[in-house]
Amino acid sequence: QGPLDEASGAQLQREATLATTNYEGFPYAQTMANFPPAVHDVFLFDELLSPEEKDIRYRTRAFMEKEIAPIIANYWERAAFPFEVVPNLAKLNLGGANLAGYGCPGQSVIGAAMAVVEIARVDASMSTFLMVHNSLCMLTLGLLGSEEQKRELLPDMAALKLIGAWGLTEPSNGSDAAALQTTARKVNGGWVLNGQKRWIGNATFADVIVIWARSSETKQVNAFVVRKGARGLRTSKIENKIALRVVQNADIFLDDCFVADSARLPGVTSFKDTNKVLAISRIMVAWQPVGIACGVFDMCKRYVDERVQFGAALGSFQLVQEKLARMLANVQAMFLMCWRLSKLYEEGKMTHELASTTKAWTTLRGREVVSLGRELLGGNGVVSDFLVAKAFGDMEAIYTYEGTYEVNVLVAGRGITGKAAFKAAPARKQPTSVQA
Amino acid sequence: QGPLDEASGAQLQREATLATTNYEGFPYAQTMANFPPAVHDVFLFDELLSPEEKDIRYRTRAFMEKEIAPIIANYWERAAFPFEVVPNLAKLNLGGANLAGYGCPGQSVIGAAMAVVEIARVDASMSTFLMVHNSLCMLTLGLLGSEEQKRELLPDMAALKLIGAWGLTEPSNGSDAAALQTTARKVNGGWVLNGQKRWIGNATFADVIVIWARSSETKQVNAFVVRKGARGLRTSKIENKIALRVVQNADIFLDDCFVADSARLPGVTSFKDTNKVLAISRIMVAWQPVGIACGVFDMCKRYVDERVQFGAALGSFQLVQEKLARMLANVQAMFLMCWRLSKLYEEGKMTHELASTTKAWTTLRGREVVSLGRELLGGNGVVSDFLVAKAFGDMEAIYTYEGTYEVNVLVAGRGITGKAAFKAAPARKQPTSVQA
Amino acid sequence: QGPLDEASGAQLQREATLATTNYEGFPYAQTMANFPPAVHDVFLFDELLSPEEKDIRYRTRAFMEKEIAPIIANYWERAAFPFEVVPNLAKLNLGGANLAGYGCPGQSVIGAAMAVVEIARVDASMSTFLMVHNSLCMLTLGLLGSEEQKRELLPDMAALKLIGAWGLTEPSNGSDAAALQTTARKVNGGWVLNGQKRWIGNATFADVIVIWARSSETKQVNAFVVRKGARGLRTSKIENKIALRVVQNADIFLDDCFVADSARLPGVTSFKDTNKVLAISRIMVAWQPVGIACGVFDMCKRYVDERVQFGAALGSFQLVQEKLARMLANVQAMFLMCWRLSKLYEEGKMTHELASTTKAWTTLRGREVVSLGRELLGGNGVVSDFLVAKAFGDMEAIYTYEGTYEVNVLVAGRGITGKAAFKAAPARKQPTSVQA
Amino acid sequence: QGPLDEASGAQLQREATLATTNYEGFPYAQTMANFPPAVHDVFLFDELLSPEEKDIRYRTRAFMEKEIAPIIANYWERAAFPFEVVPNLAKLNLGGANLAGYGCPGQSVIGAAMAVVEIARVDASMSTFLMVHNSLCMLTLGLLGSEEQKRELLPDMAALKLIGAWGLTEPSNGSDAAALQTTARKVNGGWVLNGQKRWIGNATFADVIVIWARSSETKQVNAFVVRKGARGLRTSKIENKIALRVVQNADIFLDDCFVADSARLPGVTSFKDTNKVLAISRIMVAWQPVGIACGVFDMCKRYVDERVQFGAALGSFQLVQEKLARMLANVQAMFLMCWRLSKLYEEGKMTHELASTTKAWTTLRGREVVSLGRELLGGNGVVSDFLVAKAFGDMEAIYTYEGTYEVNVLVAGRGITGKAAFKAAPARKQPTSVQA
Ligand SMILES: Cc1cc2nc3c(=O)[nH]c(=O)nc-3n(C[C@H](O)[C@H](O)[C@H](O)COP(=O)(O)OP(=O)(O)OC[C@H]3O[C@@H](n4cnc5c(N)ncnc54)[C@H](O)[C@@H]3O)c2cc1C
Ligand SMILES: Cc1cc2nc3c(=O)[nH]c(=O)nc-3n(C[C@H](O)[C@H](O)[C@H](O)COP(=O)(O)OP(=O)(O)OC[C@H]3O[C@@H](n4cnc5c(N)ncnc54)[C@H](O)[C@@H]3O)c2cc1C
Ligand SMILES: Cc1cc2nc3c(=O)[nH]c(=O)nc-3n(C[C@H](O)[C@H](O)[C@H](O)COP(=O)(O)OP(=O)(O)OC[C@H]3O[C@@H](n4cnc5c(N)ncnc54)[C@H](O)[C@@H]3O)c2cc1C
Ligand SMILES: Cc1cc2nc3c(=O)[nH]c(=O)nc-3n(C[C@H](O)[C@H](O)[C@H](O)COP(=O)(O)OP(=O)(O)OC[C@H]3O[C@@H](n4cnc5c(N)ncnc54)[C@H](O)[C@@H]3O)c2cc1C
Repeated sequence: QGPLDEASGAQLQREATLATTNYEGFPYAQTMANFPPAVHDVFLFDELLSPEEKDIRYRTRAFMEKEIAPIIANYWERAAFPFEVVPNLAKLNLGGANLAGYGCPGQSVIGAAMAVVEIARVDASMSTFLMVHNSLCMLTLGLLGSEEQKRELLPDMAALKLIGAWGLTEPSNGSDAAALQTTARKVNGGWVLNGQKRWIGNATFADVIVIWARSSETKQVNAFVVRKGARGLRTSKIENKIALRVVQNADIFLDDCFVADSARLPGVTSFKDTNKVLAISRIMVAWQPVGIACGVFDMCKRYVDERVQFGAALGSFQLVQEKLARMLANVQAMFLMCWRLSKLYEEGKMTHELASTTKAWTTLRGREVVSLGRELLGGNGVVSDFLVAKAFGDMEAIYTYEGTYEVNVLVAGRGITGKAAFKAAPARKQPTSVQA
Repeated sequence: QGPLDEASGAQLQREATLATTNYEGFPYAQTMANFPPAVHDVFLFDELLSPEEKDIRYRTRAFMEKEIAPIIANYWERAAFPFEVVPNLAKLNLGGANLAGYGCPGQSVIGAAMAVVEIARVDASMSTFLMVHNSLCMLTLGLLGSEEQKRELLPDMAALKLIGAWGLTEPSNGSDAAALQTTARKVNGGWVLNGQKRWIGNATFADVIVIWARSSETKQVNAFVVRKGARGLRTSKIENKIALRVVQNADIFLDDCFVADSARLPGVTSFKDTNKVLAISRIMVAWQPVGIACGVFDMCKRYVDERVQFGAALGSFQLVQEKLARMLANVQAMFLMCWRLSKLYEEGKMTHELASTTKAWTTLRGREVVSLGRELLGGNGVVSDFLVAKAFGDMEAIYTYEGTYEVNVLVAGRGITGKAAFKAAPARKQPTSVQA
Repeated sequence: QGPLDEASGAQLQREATLATTNYEGFPYAQTMANFPPAVHDVFLFDELLSPEEKDIRYRTRAFMEKEIAPIIANYWERAAFPFEVVPNLAKLNLGGANLAGYGCPGQSVIGAAMAVVEIARVDASMSTFLMVHNSLCMLTLGLLGSEEQKRELLPDMAALKLIGAWGLTEPSNGSDAAALQTTARKVNGGWVLNGQKRWIGNATFADVIVIWARSSETKQVNAFVVRKGARGLRTSKIENKIALRVVQNADIFLDDCFVADSARLPGVTSFKDTNKVLAISRIMVAWQPVGIACGVFDMCKRYVDERVQFGAALGSFQLVQEKLARMLANVQAMFLMCWRLSKLYEEGKMTHELASTTKAWTTLRGREVVSLGRELLGGNGVVSDFLVAKAFGDMEAIYTYEGTYEVNVLVAGRGITGKAAFKAAPARKQPTSVQA
Repeated sequence: QGPLDEASGAQLQREATLATTNYEGFPYAQTMANFPPAVHDVFLFDELLSPEEKDIRYRTRAFMEKEIAPIIANYWERAAFPFEVVPNLAKLNLGGANLAGYGCPGQSVIGAAMAVVEIARVDASMSTFLMVHNSLCMLTLGLLGSEEQKRELLPDMAALKLIGAWGLTEPSNGSDAAALQTTARKVNGGWVLNGQKRWIGNATFADVIVIWARSSETKQVNAFVVRKGARGLRTSKIENKIALRVVQNADIFLDDCFVADSARLPGVTSFKDTNKVLAISRIMVAWQPVGIACGVFDMCKRYVDERVQFGAALGSFQLVQEKLARMLANVQAMFLMCWRLSKLYEEGKMTHELASTTKAWTTLRGREVVSLGRELLGGNGVVSDFLVAKAFGDMEAIYTYEGTYEVNVLVAGRGITGKAAFKAAPARKQPTSVQA
């Protein structure tokens, strides 16, 4: 059974309708319900795409503008997930992304990225939902799972009949995930998991959760498939977020949670194996700010055309034009960075350090774009109906997950200098006085 | 009857309790429910305060930490106003602020500011609630109202038995408020108001709303007291905000809304009279980011002590220390700016341009502080239980209201250059080509 | 006669030698005299270049590192031009750049850009020297000159036997160049030029100066070739610069300066014709910060390896690594932006607005890079022997010429909004009060 | 004999005259030679000053505007020191600053600061010259010297007949000054100094140099007075600076340099004693950006009034006004920060951490101000005749000396967190992989 069971279609339908009605309080500029046309592609990136990549881009865009844009601000406000859109989303055939076989579409990296961009352009949460499913959970199974695991799970996951989650982070171990503390004790016929996870996207309703845990035998990190409803598994939704509110993040409590031997992913023998997955997922995360920024620019462009103050459209003012120009240039540069990173990956020349460099940088610039957009909309910039407020909040999560900005620049810095700087120096070795 | 009628005490109590329980998912750092100690005052501003100002500061702080901090994240999430705290808030004797007489406390500007700072330190929305009431609505009545209006309204408002709102902004006129379009048609025994207002804080439940409208007789802007429930008055809550979610902002629809002659404020004969009020309210708004930044710094300081990663408290890392140092310096500078501005006001030497310069600047620096704080908390930085996420959203509204950043720098710039730059140049006079 | 006459070889030789000797005061890190290896190309841009473009890149790099790096800090300090290097520079066959025929190499836009990048990596002034010559003066002649003018001048200019300058800016007209005031009065057999130019690069010694002036007949802007030593032409070096000190900028005084009919460029009939030249030159200027940033990154990378403080190479510190990562990402993004812009140009799809968007943005990011580099070198960051100080100054000129940052974002903004915002609104039309 | 011997009055006079003549190339805005009026004090700081402090401020301002402004750009260009102005500077009675007795004026901290601000407003180098003399060299003697040393040196130094320098930094030890390596070997009747110093201001001509060196007996840091011309003392000017070019910084080579027992400062027994001096000098350094920013704002205000483009004074443009407003607010905030820090010092409540916090922050904001000013002046922003270019360069040195920005925020951060973060973690203890 997939997530759809949880949605009560009728009520959702009604709420969705509300959101598409006219915005009574402010008739001078359109909301995101009628999504603004894509005008950001001034550098003609489309021409850098293959026909297939373009196709992914355009059909995802059409779906998002038509089916998600009118309803999503309302879900975001309620921190609710729109289960009822999943069947139509599934028809886009995006499940599985880069994976080939087992019902997966085998997209190119840039093809998969186009889906991320177009989804994030309208709603970053939805892109995170799909990325957790595709580029974390399914990819881990695809790269590191057994033949049996793949056969059992991937086809239904590709069809979004089963939804995946991916549990690495723990309350005690966020940036320092390598030192994770969840344990997997070997017992007869399987493993007993104990520990706590935090922040796990989709986990409140996911059917398949990959759990990273330390083996009692090898002391190394292993990975396990935990199915929905497993005994000893409890999830609790993280409330009160200001970012990606549509994503259902959960605290996971594993209390003597038993999984069979077949649940262990044979491809994982140490923490380093996470990197095989993160290599791709970090590229995808780097693309998210691109999509967000495209949407924000498109919205702002329309808004400054429509909104008049002091007798002129906002777009007539110097201070407004400077922001628009900076936003547009950032959008182009962000796109190019991710495009080149993806190309290098496809050519086998990407390193983790480059992915970290890029991810950190696109979130930095992305933050600038949403912040400028927030300013441009004035008061309506704090109302998620006008898209930008929502994007403004969402960007913060992306700045922080898949390695915070700081952790990623330290990975990049290690690449540049050859020196790791993650640890603090022991307190006693510090100088008692310095010049300053 | 005051707002308390609307609150259903029992349920609110229950919800409040929830928020104070331990934060199960993350036991490694405390939430705002147990508010962090004030450690930000390294420049000893307390010593710049009079005993009375200090007293306001400390009793407000105590109230906020004890009664608001444990419950407010939950209200913020639900975009609800905590009516049940109003009676205790009223006991602080802050209603009326700078006004003297009519039951008002006659605080010094800095005294009133200390209340704003301490409230905003825990929750910016609550400070906006009170400022709209005190420094917009009551102040307008106190400065520009008739003796009768003052006698009728101010005492109950000082006691927070009646709550005020203040309606200037319109959907068609935000930054360009001077050109507002709501009309007041003179009729027998009174005036008929028509038009639409937007963004009016407290207006969904306010007992007293000051409405700015253009007189059919003089074509000048006048002001009117509109009471709750007046015929032709409709308010509709603005939903889906990411900032000041506890503040109930409303769209107001005035549809042949009749008010008696006695409802007109005799002190107002043109738009310029708004400045008498805004002179003080803008000072207060400039102080809000100070309070927000103090709270965020205090929270971050405790968080980086408690949170350990890579074997050390976050506070041990260089990248963390740089942020803390920048935040702390900003807090000091923001405080000093507002303190000096307030002193100049008290000495009769403040200008509108200086207030605008200061307001624009404290929101700029305040934004930097909350953004740095957001980074420091990692994932928990997007959860409002940990204060910073909430502050991060709230700051955006303050950046934008009482004159956006841009409008305020243009006011400041007019002061510096003697040239107004609010208008766009007529399109046809532009050069068809420039060097660039 | 070329510029070499002005150089007194012997003395220059001696001074140059001084600069290459060891840096006595600081033996812990190498100066730019021994130029650091190119390590910035982590995104493998080389693979985006054609063999010919690569060839231009590598031979220019070799020349710059070997012949210019050891001597140029000394010239920069003295604000002197190294005439004696011109013959060897000429051998690189870069004169004429994109032009084909008349002895010119007919480089691709990206090929020409590679020369700019590699020259600017070591010294931005030298790249400006060549760009003024190639992409302003020669290009104007090539695109807008008569066959006779081309035949007479281009071959010797391609061989750097004649050096060009290009005079558009006037003291009264910088950003507003379109309103230039220099006049060309038609007389028998020619034109009499009167007026003043400012900032004209190379003009103190140039053999060929293109002068833009307003025709007394058409009131339109025309262009004229003025040769060195023409009567009525006086140039005066602009002293005391902190940027591009090696470039010899001049104030030009035209005092009844007669030029023959043949000196007028037939292709120019109005100010708009400048755009034909600026379309390309602005691309080249956008590339300059790329080259500067590459050099600064390369230098910093070596410096943080060599320099030890607190018992560790600077590269070990978090605050240092964050800067390096940001610099490196910026370098990649800047390169990609210019690369894409150039490709669009080559495909006939570039607009002025895109060139302005890009130029403004690369100078913005370039400024960030040099500023970070300045910080990284501590005290040595203010000494031009260590490259970064020089680059730090130079970037400012590029931020400002070929359209300031502001003028370029207004061009970009006009492209986005369709509204020109160059002009100020008439003073009397401004509101006397606004909300703020 | 003081420095005046080195100046050849006649020639200097001639050069100075040149600089005051009209600026031929640009008649549309005045240069710094005719210094702009002080318009920056919109927060009326003057009213926070005592009569004596005001007096220092105004007579220093008058001197700087009249005697230094017309000539200093020329000295800055030539990296030369204006020895001939010293006699008149001496008449201001600023020598010795905070010290009382021994002919010193015993200024309050804020009084001394006003001299720094007013000097730096016109020329930062001159303020550094005086601060090295007053707040480093004389203060060290005054606080840590013997009665005999004070009697011998302070009166002549107060009269600027003897000029001081202060040598702490070494090529191997900049930020990590506490580990300095210069040695003082005890011999009969005195000490033999060996080692190298770098960056020592005034040292090329100073009469009195305080040298910090490690005692061969105690292994602790001691301080010694080395007089001009001492055997074994060699100084070499640091050339090619882009900042504080008027300051003569030197590399000092101590090659078996003998000083008598009486040359040792008895008050110094370990490195920590530097802090007694730096406590005050860092306050003074924090004030330097204030002065610089005041001058830059004053200049920009006049410039945007005088300079016309597109038919209007630059001050009419929105993009210009935003910069002016930001600059002005920064100036006020910087002033207030230093004022409060100084007050706390005077009340015995300042800590090193607060001085570091403030110094780091005023240089950060100061950098923003000069950068904005640089932009505002367009091309003339790179010409030091117009002040801002000079200030733009100078700010960089201040950002870096007396503890770099980074070192100061780490001191501040230690104060906030209680954890020192100066050292890098040992390489081998780092994680081999992290999440990112
Ligand atoms: C919306 C959202 C969705 C997420 N989804 C998932 C998911 O599906 N699955 C999953 O496994 N995880 C998920 N995460 C978790 C995410 O990966 C972590 O939040 C992230 O790694 C940061 O960890 P943390 O929150 O514990 O912050 P911390 O590690 O506590 O970091 C706090 C701050 O300290 C800084 N810091 C930490 N270490 C250092 C250091 N050595 N030097 C300098 N600074 C340092 C950080 O940069 C940050 O600023 C999600 C997070 C969010 C917010
Ligand atoms: C949470 C909140 C509470 C509020 N409470 C109240 C209240 O209680 N009572 C009340 O009367 N009002 C209230 N306001 C309204 C507030 O004062 C307006 O939002 C504000 O003045 C901006 O108007 P606007 O939203 O229409 O933005 P706009 O005026 O449309 O501005 C949009 C953007 O254009 C820019 N812009 C506008 N004009 C120019 C120009 N000439 N040149 C350059 N840029 C320009 C702005 O800076 C902004 O970036 C509130 C607003 C918010 C968000
Ligand atoms: C090193 C150097 C080399 C140069 N070489 C050449 C050369 O070889 N040939 C040549 O012809 N020129 C050359 N120039 C001139 C250059 O193109 C001009 O400096 C530039 O166009 C700016 O003009 P300006 O200096 O007069 O500044 P202004 O036009 O006076 O601008 C001053 C400030 O006002 C701002 N401003 C101006 N107009 C507006 C507006 N409408 N709205 C908002 N802000 C505005 C600007 O952005 C800037 O910040 C050179 C300049 C430099 C510095
Ligand atoms: C114009 C000028 C005048 C001066 N005058 C004097 C004088 O009169 N007397 C005197 O004694 N000295 C003087 N100084 C020296 C000044 O104090 C030093 O330059 C300063 O302390 C920095 O040292 P450094 O240049 O060796 O840089 P470094 O210490 O090598 O620093 C280089 C970079 O590394 C960073 N860094 C260093 N350590 C760390 C760390 N642990 N963590 C993170 N980052 C780090 C720095 O912040 C900087 O960005 C002067 C300097 C200048 C530029």
